[in-house]
Amino acid sequence: MTENADKQTLAQACCEQLKRGDGLIDHLGISIEVVDAGSAEVRMRVQEWMTNGHGTCHGGMIFSLADSAFAFACNSENQPNVAASVSIDYLNAAHKGEVLTAIATRTAQRGRTGIYDIEVKNDAGTLIALFRGKSQRISGELIATEPSV
Amino acid sequence: MTENADKQTLAQACCEQLKRGDGLIDHLGISIEVVDAGSAEVRMRVQEWMTNGHGTCHGGMIFSLADSAFAFACNSENQPNVAASVSIDYLNAAHKGEVLTAIATRTAQRGRTGIYDIEVKNDAGTLIALFRGKSQRISGELIATEPSV
Amino acid sequence: MTENADKQTLAQACCEQLKRGDGLIDHLGISIEVVDAGSAEVRMRVQEWMTNGHGTCHGGMIFSLADSAFAFACNSENQPNVAASVSIDYLNAAHKGEVLTAIATRTAQRGRTGIYDIEVKNDAGTLIALFRGKSQRISGELIATEPSV
Amino acid sequence: MTENADKQTLAQACCEQLKRGDGLIDHLGISIEVVDAGSAEVRMRVQEWMTNGHGTCHGGMIFSLADSAFAFACNSENQPNVAASVSIDYLNAAHKGEVLTAIATRTAQRGRTGIYDIEVKNDAGTLIALFRGKSQRISGELIATEPSV
Repeated sequence: MTENADKQTLAQACCEQLKRGDGLIDHLGISIEVVDAGSAEVRMRVQEWMTNGHGTCHGGMIFSLADSAFAFACNSENQPNVAASVSIDYLNAAHKGEVLTAIATRTAQRGRTGIYDIEVKNDAGTLIALFRGKSQRISGELIATEPSV
Repeated sequence: MTENADKQTLAQACCEQLKRGDGLIDHLGISIEVVDAGSAEVRMRVQEWMTNGHGTCHGGMIFSLADSAFAFACNSENQPNVAASVSIDYLNAAHKGEVLTAIATRTAQRGRTGIYDIEVKNDAGTLIALFRGKSQRISGELIATEPSV
Repeated sequence: MTENADKQTLAQACCEQLKRGDGLIDHLGISIEVVDAGSAEVRMRVQEWMTNGHGTCHGGMIFSLADSAFAFACNSENQPNVAASVSIDYLNAAHKGEVLTAIATRTAQRGRTGIYDIEVKNDAGTLIALFRGKSQRISGELIATEPSV
Repeated sequence: MTENADKQTLAQACCEQLKRGDGLIDHLGISIEVVDAGSAEVRMRVQEWMTNGHGTCHGGMIFSLADSAFAFACNSENQPNVAASVSIDYLNAAHKGEVLTAIATRTAQRGRTGIYDIEVKNDAGTLIALFRGKSQRISGELIATEPSV
Protein backbone atom coordinates (compact mmCIF):
# COMPACT_ATOMS: atom_id res chain seq x y z
CA MET A 1 0.00 0.00 0.00
CA THR A 2 2.79 2.37 0.93
CA GLU A 3 4.61 1.32 -2.20
CA ASN A 4 1.52 2.04 -4.27
CA ALA A 5 1.17 5.40 -2.59
CA ASP A 6 4.79 6.17 -3.44
CA LYS A 7 4.21 5.22 -7.04
CA GLN A 8 1.20 7.46 -7.22
CA THR A 9 3.11 10.35 -5.66
CA LEU A 10 5.91 9.89 -8.19
CA ALA A 11 3.40 9.73 -11.07
CA GLN A 12 1.82 12.95 -9.80
CA ALA A 13 5.21 14.68 -9.62
CA CYS A 14 6.11 13.54 -13.14
CA CYS A 15 2.78 14.86 -14.37
CA GLU A 16 3.45 18.26 -12.77
CA GLN A 17 6.87 18.30 -14.43
CA LEU A 18 5.38 17.55 -17.86
CA LYS A 19 2.80 20.30 -17.45
CA ARG A 20 5.50 22.86 -16.63
CA GLY A 21 5.94 25.03 -19.67
CA ASP A 22 3.50 22.96 -21.70
CA GLY A 23 1.22 25.04 -23.89
CA LEU A 24 -1.22 22.50 -25.26
CA ILE A 25 -2.86 21.07 -22.13
CA ASP A 26 -4.21 24.48 -21.13
CA HIS A 27 -4.99 25.53 -24.67
CA LEU A 28 -7.23 22.50 -25.20
CA GLY A 29 -8.70 22.76 -21.71
CA ILE A 30 -7.58 19.27 -20.76
CA SER A 31 -8.05 18.35 -17.10
CA ILE A 32 -6.03 15.58 -15.54
CA GLU A 33 -8.26 13.32 -13.47
CA VAL A 34 -5.96 10.49 -12.45
CA VAL A 35 -2.31 9.59 -12.92
CA ASP A 36 -0.61 6.48 -11.62
CA ALA A 37 2.24 4.16 -12.56
CA GLY A 38 1.61 3.36 -16.22
CA SER A 39 -1.86 4.86 -16.40
CA ALA A 40 -3.70 8.18 -16.68
CA GLU A 41 -7.16 9.60 -17.20
CA VAL A 42 -7.81 13.00 -18.79
CA ARG A 43 -10.87 14.93 -19.89
CA MET A 44 -11.72 17.64 -22.43
CA ARG A 45 -14.86 19.46 -23.56
CA VAL A 46 -15.27 19.64 -27.34
CA GLN A 47 -15.17 23.35 -28.12
CA GLU A 48 -16.67 24.97 -31.20
CA TRP A 49 -13.29 25.69 -32.82
CA MET A 50 -12.44 21.98 -32.58
CA THR A 51 -15.29 21.05 -34.92
CA ASN A 52 -16.04 21.09 -38.61
CA GLY A 53 -19.03 22.69 -40.31
CA HIS A 54 -21.36 19.98 -38.99
CA GLY A 55 -20.35 20.38 -35.34
CA THR A 56 -18.33 17.15 -35.42
CA CYS A 57 -15.05 17.07 -33.53
CA HIS A 58 -11.90 16.82 -35.67
CA GLY A 59 -9.89 13.62 -35.39
CA GLY A 60 -6.79 15.61 -34.51
CA MET A 61 -8.46 16.89 -31.34
CA ILE A 62 -9.56 13.42 -30.25
CA PHE A 63 -6.03 12.27 -31.01
CA SER A 64 -4.56 15.12 -28.96
CA LEU A 65 -6.66 14.26 -25.93
CA ALA A 66 -5.69 10.57 -26.11
CA ASP A 67 -2.09 11.55 -26.75
CA SER A 68 -1.94 13.54 -23.52
CA ALA A 69 -3.24 10.55 -21.53
CA PHE A 70 -0.58 8.46 -23.29
CA ALA A 71 2.15 10.98 -22.39
CA PHE A 72 1.20 11.12 -18.71
CA ALA A 73 1.00 7.32 -18.51
CA CYS A 74 4.31 6.55 -20.20
CA ASN A 75 6.17 9.23 -18.23
CA SER A 76 4.73 8.31 -14.86
CA GLU A 77 7.79 6.49 -13.48
CA ASN A 78 10.42 9.21 -13.88
CA GLN A 79 11.91 7.61 -16.99
CA PRO A 80 11.36 9.97 -19.91
CA ASN A 81 9.58 8.44 -22.89
CA VAL A 82 8.65 9.85 -26.27
CA ALA A 83 6.00 8.66 -28.70
CA ALA A 84 7.44 6.63 -31.55
CA SER A 85 4.21 5.81 -33.35
CA VAL A 86 0.47 5.71 -32.89
CA SER A 87 -2.50 4.09 -34.56
CA ILE A 88 -6.04 5.35 -34.00
CA ASP A 89 -9.39 3.87 -34.98
CA TYR A 90 -12.47 6.07 -34.97
CA LEU A 91 -15.64 4.33 -33.85
CA ASN A 92 -18.20 7.08 -33.32
CA ALA A 93 -18.33 10.83 -33.91
CA ALA A 94 -17.90 13.29 -31.04
CA HIS A 95 -19.84 16.54 -31.03
CA LYS A 96 -19.56 20.10 -29.83
CA GLY A 97 -20.20 20.43 -26.10
CA GLU A 98 -19.56 16.79 -25.25
CA VAL A 99 -17.01 15.98 -22.58
CA LEU A 100 -14.58 13.29 -23.71
CA THR A 101 -12.61 11.08 -21.35
CA ALA A 102 -9.41 9.30 -22.35
CA ILE A 103 -8.07 6.47 -20.21
CA ALA A 104 -4.55 5.20 -20.85
CA THR A 105 -3.21 1.88 -19.61
CA ARG A 106 0.07 0.12 -20.27
CA THR A 107 -0.48 -3.07 -22.24
CA ALA A 108 3.13 -4.18 -22.59
CA GLN A 109 6.71 -3.12 -21.92
CA ARG A 110 9.74 -4.75 -23.51
CA GLY A 111 13.14 -3.14 -23.12
CA ARG A 112 12.79 0.53 -24.04
CA THR A 113 9.56 0.03 -25.96
CA GLY A 114 6.15 0.33 -24.34
CA ILE A 115 2.69 -0.24 -25.78
CA TYR A 116 -0.20 1.75 -24.33
CA ASP A 117 -3.89 1.49 -25.10
CA ILE A 118 -6.09 4.54 -24.77
CA GLU A 119 -9.89 4.49 -24.93
CA VAL A 120 -11.78 7.69 -25.64
CA LYS A 121 -15.43 7.83 -24.59
CA ASN A 122 -18.08 10.53 -24.43
CA ASP A 123 -20.35 11.44 -21.48
CA ALA A 124 -22.77 8.68 -22.40
CA GLY A 125 -20.02 6.08 -22.32
CA THR A 126 -20.03 5.63 -26.10
CA LEU A 127 -16.68 4.57 -27.47
CA ILE A 128 -15.32 7.34 -29.68
CA ALA A 129 -11.86 6.04 -30.55
CA LEU A 130 -9.22 3.43 -29.76
CA PHE A 131 -5.65 4.79 -29.70
CA ARG A 132 -2.61 2.51 -29.44
CA GLY A 133 0.65 4.31 -28.79
CA LYS A 134 4.19 2.99 -28.83
CA SER A 135 6.65 4.73 -26.52
CA GLN A 136 10.43 4.83 -26.69
CA ARG A 137 12.39 5.42 -23.50
CA ILE A 138 15.15 7.99 -23.75
CA SER A 139 18.01 8.49 -21.32
CA GLY A 140 17.90 10.68 -18.23
CA GLU A 141 15.28 11.35 -15.62
CA LEU A 142 12.20 13.50 -15.70
CA ILE A 143 12.74 14.83 -12.19
CA ALA A 144 16.28 15.20 -10.91
CA THR A 145 16.80 12.86 -7.97
CA GLU A 146 19.50 13.13 -5.30
CA PRO A 147 22.79 11.67 -6.43
CA SER A 148 23.50 8.46 -4.56
CA VAL A 149 26.38 9.06 -2.13
CA MET B 1 -5.81 19.12 -70.00
CA THR B 2 -9.32 20.54 -69.79
CA GLU B 3 -10.29 17.47 -67.84
CA ASN B 4 -7.43 18.03 -65.40
CA ALA B 5 -8.44 21.67 -65.05
CA ASP B 6 -12.00 20.55 -64.29
CA LYS B 7 -10.75 18.15 -61.65
CA GLN B 8 -8.70 20.86 -60.04
CA THR B 9 -11.64 23.26 -60.06
CA LEU B 10 -13.83 20.62 -58.42
CA ALA B 11 -11.15 19.88 -55.82
CA GLN B 12 -10.91 23.61 -55.07
CA ALA B 13 -14.68 23.89 -54.67
CA CYS B 14 -14.77 20.86 -52.36
CA CYS B 15 -12.01 22.41 -50.30
CA GLU B 16 -13.96 25.66 -49.96
CA GLN B 17 -17.00 23.66 -48.88
CA LEU B 18 -15.01 21.80 -46.20
CA LYS B 19 -13.59 25.06 -44.86
CA ARG B 20 -17.08 26.58 -44.51
CA GLY B 21 -17.93 26.55 -40.85
CA ASP B 22 -14.73 24.73 -39.94
CA GLY B 23 -13.09 26.01 -36.79
CA LEU B 24 -9.80 24.15 -36.70
CA ILE B 25 -8.10 25.21 -39.93
CA ASP B 26 -8.12 28.86 -38.87
CA HIS B 27 -7.38 28.13 -35.25
CA LEU B 28 -4.21 26.25 -36.14
CA GLY B 29 -3.27 28.78 -38.81
CA ILE B 30 -3.22 26.14 -41.55
CA SER B 31 -2.83 27.47 -45.08
CA ILE B 32 -3.93 25.41 -48.05
CA GLU B 33 -1.27 25.49 -50.74
CA VAL B 34 -2.53 23.01 -53.32
CA VAL B 35 -5.58 20.80 -53.74
CA ASP B 36 -6.21 18.47 -56.63
CA ALA B 37 -7.97 15.16 -57.32
CA GLY B 38 -6.74 12.84 -54.56
CA SER B 39 -4.02 15.14 -53.28
CA ALA B 40 -3.41 18.23 -51.15
CA GLU B 41 -0.61 20.27 -49.62
CA VAL B 42 -1.03 22.34 -46.46
CA ARG B 43 1.27 24.33 -44.21
CA MET B 44 1.39 25.43 -40.55
CA ARG B 45 3.80 27.37 -38.34
CA VAL B 46 4.50 25.69 -34.99
CA GLN B 47 3.21 28.15 -32.41
CA GLU B 48 4.34 28.34 -28.82
CA TRP B 49 1.10 26.90 -27.42
CA MET B 50 1.58 23.82 -29.63
CA THR B 51 4.79 22.89 -27.83
CA ASN B 52 5.85 21.27 -24.59
CA GLY B 53 8.25 22.70 -22.02
CA HIS B 54 11.22 22.03 -24.30
CA GLY B 55 9.78 23.88 -27.30
CA THR B 56 9.03 20.62 -29.11
CA CYS B 57 5.80 20.40 -31.08
CA HIS B 58 3.18 18.01 -29.71
CA GLY B 59 2.37 14.94 -31.81
CA GLY B 60 -1.30 15.89 -31.84
CA MET B 61 -0.50 19.11 -33.70
CA ILE B 62 1.62 17.33 -36.32
CA PHE B 63 -1.21 14.82 -36.60
CA SER B 64 -3.78 17.60 -37.02
CA LEU B 65 -1.81 19.22 -39.84
CA ALA B 66 -1.42 15.90 -41.68
CA ASP B 67 -5.07 15.10 -40.99
CA SER B 68 -6.21 18.28 -42.73
CA ALA B 69 -4.16 17.42 -45.84
CA PHE B 70 -5.75 13.96 -45.69
CA ALA B 71 -9.26 15.44 -45.42
CA PHE B 72 -8.80 17.78 -48.39
CA ALA B 73 -7.30 14.99 -50.50
CA CYS B 74 -9.97 12.35 -49.80
CA ASN B 75 -12.83 14.83 -50.27
CA SER B 76 -11.52 16.36 -53.48
CA GLU B 77 -13.87 14.60 -55.89
CA ASN B 78 -17.23 15.60 -54.40
CA GLN B 79 -17.75 12.21 -52.74
CA PRO B 80 -17.77 12.76 -49.00
CA ASN B 81 -15.26 10.64 -47.07
CA VAL B 82 -14.54 10.31 -43.38
CA ALA B 83 -11.42 9.05 -41.66
CA ALA B 84 -11.78 5.47 -40.41
CA SER B 85 -8.30 5.01 -38.98
CA VAL B 86 -4.81 6.47 -39.06
CA SER B 87 -1.32 5.36 -38.17
CA ILE B 88 1.47 7.86 -37.65
CA ASP B 89 5.23 7.35 -37.24
CA TYR B 90 7.34 10.14 -35.80
CA LEU B 91 10.80 10.46 -37.34
CA ASN B 92 12.17 13.78 -36.11
CA ALA B 93 11.06 16.44 -33.66
CA ALA B 94 9.52 19.71 -34.88
CA HIS B 95 10.21 22.92 -33.00
CA LYS B 96 8.58 26.23 -32.21
CA GLY B 97 8.71 28.64 -35.13
CA GLU B 98 9.28 26.03 -37.81
CA VAL B 99 6.91 25.88 -40.75
CA LEU B 100 5.68 22.36 -41.42
CA THR B 101 4.37 21.16 -44.77
CA ALA B 102 2.10 18.15 -45.17
CA ILE B 103 1.62 16.58 -48.59
CA ALA B 104 -1.17 14.03 -49.06
CA THR B 105 -1.40 11.61 -51.96
CA ARG B 106 -3.78 8.75 -52.63
CA THR B 107 -1.96 5.43 -52.55
CA ALA B 108 -4.90 3.12 -53.21
CA GLN B 109 -8.68 3.08 -53.58
CA ARG B 110 -10.77 -0.06 -53.39
CA GLY B 111 -14.53 0.20 -53.21
CA ARG B 112 -15.42 2.73 -50.51
CA THR B 113 -12.03 2.47 -48.80
CA GLY B 114 -9.11 4.72 -49.70
CA ILE B 115 -5.54 4.73 -48.41
CA TYR B 116 -3.68 8.02 -48.31
CA ASP B 117 -0.07 8.69 -47.41
CA ILE B 118 0.89 12.03 -45.91
CA GLU B 119 4.47 13.21 -45.43
CA VAL B 120 5.20 16.01 -42.98
CA LYS B 121 8.46 17.92 -43.43
CA ASN B 122 9.97 21.03 -41.90
CA ASP B 123 11.50 24.05 -43.71
CA ALA B 124 14.81 22.26 -44.11
CA GLY B 125 13.11 19.30 -45.80
CA THR B 126 13.66 17.01 -42.82
CA LEU B 127 11.02 14.31 -42.54
CA ILE B 128 9.03 14.87 -39.35
CA ALA B 129 6.34 12.20 -39.65
CA LEU B 130 4.69 9.65 -41.92
CA PHE B 131 0.89 9.51 -41.64
CA ARG B 132 -1.18 6.81 -43.34
CA GLY B 133 -4.92 7.43 -43.28
CA LYS B 134 -7.74 5.17 -44.29
CA SER B 135 -10.88 6.85 -45.60
CA GLN B 136 -14.42 5.54 -45.79
CA ARG B 137 -16.77 6.98 -48.39
CA ILE B 138 -20.21 7.90 -47.13
CA SER B 139 -23.31 8.56 -49.21
CA GLY B 140 -24.27 11.92 -50.68
CA GLU B 141 -22.34 14.71 -52.30
CA LEU B 142 -20.19 17.42 -50.81
CA ILE B 143 -21.52 20.08 -53.16
CA ALA B 144 -25.09 19.80 -54.39
CA THR B 145 -25.12 19.32 -58.15
CA GLU B 146 -28.03 19.98 -60.53
CA PRO B 147 -30.49 17.11 -60.64
CA SER B 148 -30.30 15.32 -63.98
CA VAL B 149 -33.46 16.05 -65.98
CA MET C 1 -27.13 -19.78 -19.58
CA THR C 2 -29.15 -21.45 -22.34
CA GLU C 3 -28.55 -18.39 -24.47
CA ASN C 4 -24.82 -18.58 -23.83
CA ALA C 5 -24.84 -22.28 -24.66
CA ASP C 6 -26.63 -21.49 -27.93
CA LYS C 7 -24.03 -18.85 -28.77
CA GLN C 8 -21.25 -21.28 -28.11
CA THR C 9 -22.90 -23.96 -30.25
CA LEU C 10 -23.28 -21.48 -33.09
CA ALA C 11 -19.66 -20.37 -32.74
CA GLN C 12 -18.58 -24.01 -32.88
CA ALA C 13 -20.64 -24.63 -36.01
CA CYS C 14 -19.21 -21.52 -37.70
CA CYS C 15 -15.73 -22.70 -36.82
CA GLU C 16 -16.40 -26.11 -38.40
CA GLN C 17 -17.69 -24.37 -41.51
CA LEU C 18 -14.55 -22.21 -41.79
CA LYS C 19 -12.32 -25.26 -41.40
CA ARG C 20 -14.12 -27.07 -44.23
CA GLY C 21 -11.85 -26.96 -47.24
CA ASP C 22 -9.31 -24.80 -45.45
CA GLY C 23 -5.72 -25.77 -46.16
CA LEU C 24 -3.74 -23.61 -43.77
CA ILE C 25 -5.04 -24.67 -40.35
CA ASP C 26 -3.89 -28.24 -40.87
CA HIS C 27 -0.72 -27.28 -42.66
CA LEU C 28 0.44 -25.16 -39.74
CA GLY C 29 -0.78 -27.70 -37.19
CA ILE C 30 -3.09 -25.19 -35.52
CA SER C 31 -5.43 -26.63 -32.90
CA ILE C 32 -8.59 -24.81 -31.93
CA GLU C 33 -8.97 -24.76 -28.17
CA VAL C 34 -11.99 -22.53 -27.60
CA VAL C 35 -14.46 -20.65 -29.76
CA ASP C 36 -17.28 -18.51 -28.50
CA ALA C 37 -19.25 -15.43 -29.56
CA GLY C 38 -16.57 -12.89 -30.49
CA SER C 39 -13.63 -14.85 -29.10
CA ALA C 40 -11.32 -17.77 -29.87
CA GLU C 41 -8.19 -19.46 -28.62
CA VAL C 42 -5.83 -21.42 -30.87
CA ARG C 43 -2.44 -23.08 -30.46
CA MET C 44 0.53 -24.01 -32.66
CA ARG C 45 3.94 -25.59 -32.15
CA VAL C 46 6.80 -23.72 -33.84
CA GLN C 47 8.19 -26.17 -36.38
CA GLU C 48 11.69 -26.11 -37.80
CA TRP C 49 10.57 -24.90 -41.23
CA MET C 50 8.88 -21.90 -39.58
CA THR C 51 12.22 -20.58 -38.32
CA ASN C 52 15.24 -18.73 -39.66
CA GLY C 53 18.87 -19.81 -39.39
CA HIS C 54 18.93 -18.97 -35.68
CA GLY C 55 15.89 -21.08 -34.79
CA THR C 56 13.71 -18.00 -34.34
CA CYS C 57 10.12 -18.17 -35.56
CA HIS C 58 9.29 -15.98 -38.55
CA GLY C 59 6.88 -13.10 -37.98
CA GLY C 60 4.61 -14.38 -40.72
CA MET C 61 3.99 -17.60 -38.78
CA ILE C 62 3.18 -15.75 -35.56
CA PHE C 63 0.92 -13.53 -37.65
CA SER C 64 -0.78 -16.57 -39.23
CA LEU C 65 -1.55 -18.10 -35.85
CA ALA C 66 -3.02 -14.85 -34.53
CA ASP C 67 -4.88 -14.37 -37.79
CA SER C 68 -6.64 -17.71 -37.41
CA ALA C 69 -7.81 -16.80 -33.89
CA PHE C 70 -9.01 -13.50 -35.35
CA ALA C 71 -10.90 -15.29 -38.15
CA PHE C 72 -12.67 -17.71 -35.79
CA ALA C 73 -13.61 -14.89 -33.42
CA CYS C 74 -15.00 -12.50 -36.03
CA ASN C 75 -16.95 -15.26 -37.81
CA SER C 76 -18.43 -16.78 -34.67
CA GLU C 77 -21.92 -15.35 -35.02
CA ASN C 78 -22.83 -16.61 -38.50
CA GLN C 79 -22.22 -13.23 -40.11
CA PRO C 80 -19.29 -13.59 -42.49
CA ASN C 81 -16.43 -11.16 -41.91
CA VAL C 82 -13.17 -10.60 -43.74
CA ALA C 83 -9.99 -8.97 -42.50
CA ALA C 84 -9.61 -5.40 -43.73
CA SER C 85 -6.34 -4.54 -42.01
CA VAL C 86 -4.05 -5.67 -39.21
CA SER C 87 -1.26 -4.19 -37.15
CA ILE C 88 1.16 -6.40 -35.22
CA ASP C 89 3.80 -5.53 -32.64
CA TYR C 90 6.51 -8.04 -31.81
CA LEU C 91 7.55 -8.10 -28.15
CA ASN C 92 9.70 -11.21 -27.75
CA ALA C 93 11.10 -13.85 -30.06
CA ALA C 94 9.51 -17.29 -30.32
CA HIS C 95 11.69 -20.35 -30.85
CA LYS C 96 11.59 -23.76 -32.46
CA GLY C 97 9.63 -26.26 -30.38
CA GLU C 98 7.70 -23.72 -28.34
CA VAL C 99 3.92 -23.93 -28.28
CA LEU C 100 2.30 -20.57 -28.94
CA THR C 101 -1.21 -19.66 -27.87
CA ALA C 102 -3.25 -16.90 -29.47
CA ILE C 103 -6.32 -15.53 -27.74
CA ALA C 104 -8.68 -13.29 -29.68
CA THR C 105 -11.29 -11.03 -28.10
CA ARG C 106 -13.60 -8.44 -29.63
CA THR C 107 -12.69 -4.96 -28.43
CA ALA C 108 -15.28 -2.98 -30.38
CA GLN C 109 -17.97 -3.30 -33.04
CA ARG C 110 -19.44 -0.37 -34.92
CA GLY C 111 -21.68 -1.01 -37.90
CA ARG C 112 -19.91 -3.46 -40.19
CA THR C 113 -16.48 -2.80 -38.69
CA GLY C 114 -15.09 -4.80 -35.78
CA ILE C 115 -11.85 -4.41 -33.85
CA TYR C 116 -10.29 -7.53 -32.35
CA ASP C 117 -7.24 -7.80 -30.12
CA ILE C 118 -5.17 -10.95 -30.19
CA GLU C 119 -2.41 -11.77 -27.71
CA VAL C 120 0.21 -14.39 -28.61
CA LYS C 121 2.11 -15.98 -25.72
CA ASN C 122 4.54 -18.89 -25.41
CA ASP C 123 4.39 -21.82 -22.96
CA ALA C 124 6.01 -19.75 -20.23
CA GLY C 125 3.37 -17.04 -20.57
CA THR C 126 5.80 -14.57 -22.17
CA LEU C 127 4.08 -12.12 -24.49
CA ILE C 128 5.30 -12.73 -28.03
CA ALA C 129 3.12 -10.35 -30.02
CA LEU C 130 0.10 -8.07 -29.94
CA PHE C 131 -2.12 -8.28 -33.04
CA ARG C 132 -5.00 -5.85 -33.67
CA GLY C 133 -7.27 -6.82 -36.54
CA LYS C 134 -10.05 -4.88 -38.17
CA SER C 135 -12.88 -6.92 -39.65
CA GLN C 136 -15.40 -5.97 -42.30
CA ARG C 137 -18.75 -7.71 -42.38
CA ILE C 138 -19.88 -8.91 -45.79
CA SER C 139 -23.38 -9.97 -46.81
CA GLY C 140 -24.80 -13.46 -46.44
CA GLU C 141 -24.55 -16.11 -43.79
CA LEU C 142 -21.79 -18.54 -42.99
CA ILE C 143 -24.19 -21.41 -42.36
CA ALA C 144 -27.44 -21.54 -44.30
CA THR C 145 -30.36 -21.22 -41.88
CA GLU C 146 -33.95 -22.25 -42.51
CA PRO C 147 -35.91 -19.63 -44.42
CA SER C 148 -38.50 -17.99 -42.17
CA VAL C 149 -41.96 -19.09 -43.28
CA MET D 1 28.41 2.96 -60.79
CA THR D 2 31.12 0.91 -59.13
CA GLU D 3 29.73 2.00 -55.81
CA ASN D 4 26.24 0.89 -56.83
CA ALA D 5 27.64 -2.43 -58.03
CA ASP D 6 29.36 -2.87 -54.66
CA LYS D 7 26.12 -2.14 -52.84
CA GLN D 8 24.30 -4.67 -54.95
CA THR D 9 26.97 -7.29 -54.34
CA LEU D 10 26.76 -6.68 -50.60
CA ALA D 11 22.95 -6.89 -50.69
CA GLN D 12 23.22 -10.17 -52.57
CA ALA D 13 25.68 -11.58 -50.02
CA CYS D 14 23.43 -10.51 -47.12
CA CYS D 15 20.50 -12.19 -48.83
CA GLU D 16 22.47 -15.43 -49.18
CA GLN D 17 23.38 -15.23 -45.49
CA LEU D 18 19.74 -14.77 -44.47
CA LYS D 19 18.67 -17.73 -46.60
CA ARG D 20 21.26 -19.99 -44.94
CA GLY D 21 19.41 -22.24 -42.58
CA ASP D 22 16.11 -20.51 -43.22
CA GLY D 23 13.19 -22.88 -43.48
CA LEU D 24 10.34 -20.64 -44.60
CA ILE D 25 11.58 -19.24 -47.91
CA ASP D 26 11.78 -22.71 -49.45
CA HIS D 27 8.68 -23.99 -47.73
CA LEU D 28 6.58 -21.22 -49.23
CA GLY D 29 8.33 -21.47 -52.60
CA ILE D 30 9.44 -17.83 -52.49
CA SER D 31 11.86 -16.82 -55.22
CA ILE D 32 14.09 -13.79 -54.79
CA GLU D 33 14.06 -11.68 -57.93
CA VAL D 34 16.03 -8.59 -56.95
CA VAL D 35 17.88 -7.37 -53.87
CA ASP D 36 19.67 -4.06 -53.56
CA ALA D 37 20.53 -1.53 -50.87
CA GLY D 38 17.25 -0.94 -49.05
CA SER D 39 15.06 -2.78 -51.52
CA ALA D 40 13.98 -6.26 -52.60
CA GLU D 41 11.53 -8.03 -54.87
CA VAL D 42 10.23 -11.53 -54.21
CA ARG D 43 7.62 -13.80 -55.77
CA MET D 44 5.37 -16.68 -54.66
CA ARG D 45 2.69 -18.85 -56.26
CA VAL D 46 -0.45 -19.24 -54.15
CA GLN D 47 -0.64 -22.96 -53.41
CA GLU D 48 -3.79 -24.84 -52.52
CA TRP D 49 -2.83 -25.28 -48.86
CA MET D 50 -2.45 -21.51 -48.53
CA THR D 51 -6.14 -20.97 -49.27
CA ASN D 52 -9.45 -21.24 -47.47
CA GLY D 53 -12.49 -23.20 -48.62
CA HIS D 54 -13.21 -20.66 -51.35
CA GLY D 55 -9.73 -20.79 -52.90
CA THR D 56 -8.82 -17.40 -51.46
CA CYS D 57 -5.30 -16.92 -50.15
CA HIS D 58 -4.98 -16.48 -46.37
CA GLY D 59 -3.78 -13.09 -45.14
CA GLY D 60 -0.95 -14.74 -43.25
CA MET D 61 0.54 -16.04 -46.49
CA ILE D 62 0.35 -12.63 -48.19
CA PHE D 63 1.90 -11.19 -45.03
CA SER D 64 4.69 -13.80 -45.10
CA LEU D 65 5.59 -13.00 -48.68
CA ALA D 66 5.72 -9.26 -48.00
CA ASP D 67 7.61 -9.93 -44.78
CA SER D 68 10.38 -11.73 -46.64
CA ALA D 69 10.79 -8.80 -49.05
CA PHE D 70 10.92 -6.56 -45.97
CA ALA D 71 13.59 -8.76 -44.34
CA PHE D 72 15.83 -8.82 -47.41
CA ALA D 73 15.48 -5.05 -47.87
CA CYS D 74 16.22 -4.05 -44.28
CA ASN D 75 19.17 -6.45 -43.99
CA SER D 76 20.75 -5.51 -47.32
CA GLU D 77 23.57 -3.35 -45.92
CA ASN D 78 25.18 -5.82 -43.53
CA GLN D 79 23.61 -4.22 -40.47
CA PRO D 80 21.25 -6.74 -38.92
CA ASN D 81 17.69 -5.54 -38.44
CA VAL D 82 14.64 -7.18 -36.93
CA ALA D 83 10.98 -6.36 -37.45
CA ALA D 84 9.51 -4.34 -34.60
CA SER D 85 5.99 -3.90 -35.96
CA VAL D 86 3.97 -4.13 -39.14
CA SER D 87 0.65 -2.88 -40.43
CA ILE D 88 -1.04 -4.44 -43.43
CA ASP D 89 -4.07 -3.34 -45.45
CA TYR D 90 -5.81 -5.82 -47.71
CA LEU D 91 -7.12 -4.33 -50.95
CA ASN D 92 -8.07 -7.29 -53.13
CA ALA D 93 -8.26 -11.05 -52.69
CA ALA D 94 -5.56 -13.32 -54.09
CA HIS D 95 -6.47 -16.76 -55.44
CA LYS D 96 -5.03 -20.21 -55.83
CA GLY D 97 -2.55 -20.43 -58.69
CA GLU D 98 -1.84 -16.70 -58.91
CA VAL D 99 1.75 -15.54 -58.70
CA LEU D 100 2.17 -12.70 -56.23
CA THR D 101 5.02 -10.20 -56.32
CA ALA D 102 6.12 -8.17 -53.30
CA ILE D 103 8.34 -5.13 -53.77
CA ALA D 104 9.96 -3.57 -50.72
CA THR D 105 11.45 -0.09 -50.62
CA ARG D 106 12.85 1.95 -47.76
CA THR D 107 10.69 4.98 -47.06
CA ALA D 108 12.63 6.42 -44.12
CA GLN D 109 15.50 5.73 -41.76
CA ARG D 110 16.05 7.55 -38.50
CA GLY D 111 18.66 6.29 -36.07
CA ARG D 112 18.09 2.58 -35.58
CA THR D 113 14.51 2.69 -36.85
CA GLY D 114 13.63 2.15 -40.50
CA ILE D 115 10.26 2.31 -42.25
CA TYR D 116 9.73 0.13 -45.30
CA ASP D 117 6.76 -0.01 -47.65
CA ILE D 118 5.92 -3.23 -49.41
CA GLU D 119 3.40 -3.54 -52.23
CA VAL D 120 1.94 -6.94 -53.09
CA LYS D 121 0.44 -7.37 -56.56
CA ASN D 122 -0.86 -10.31 -58.57
CA ASP D 123 0.04 -11.29 -62.17
CA ALA D 124 -2.45 -8.82 -63.57
CA GLY D 125 -0.89 -5.96 -61.61
CA THR D 126 -3.84 -5.69 -59.22
CA LEU D 127 -2.86 -4.38 -55.82
CA ILE D 128 -3.45 -7.13 -53.23
CA ALA D 129 -2.03 -5.53 -50.08
CA LEU D 130 0.00 -2.66 -48.67
CA PHE D 131 2.45 -3.66 -45.91
CA ARG D 132 4.35 -1.09 -43.84
CA GLY D 133 7.11 -2.54 -41.68
CA LYS D 134 9.19 -0.90 -39.01
CA SER D 135 12.69 -2.29 -38.52
CA GLN D 136 14.97 -2.04 -35.52
CA ARG D 137 18.71 -2.28 -36.02
CA ILE D 138 20.53 -4.59 -33.63
CA SER D 139 24.26 -4.71 -32.98
CA GLY D 140 26.76 -6.77 -34.96
CA GLU D 141 27.17 -7.58 -38.60
CA LEU D 142 25.34 -10.02 -40.82
CA ILE D 143 28.51 -11.12 -42.59
CA ALA D 144 31.79 -11.09 -40.69
CA THR D 145 34.14 -8.58 -42.33
CA GLU D 146 37.92 -8.45 -42.03
CA PRO D 147 39.08 -6.52 -38.98
CA SER D 148 40.62 -3.21 -40.07
CA VAL D 149 44.40 -3.33 -39.51
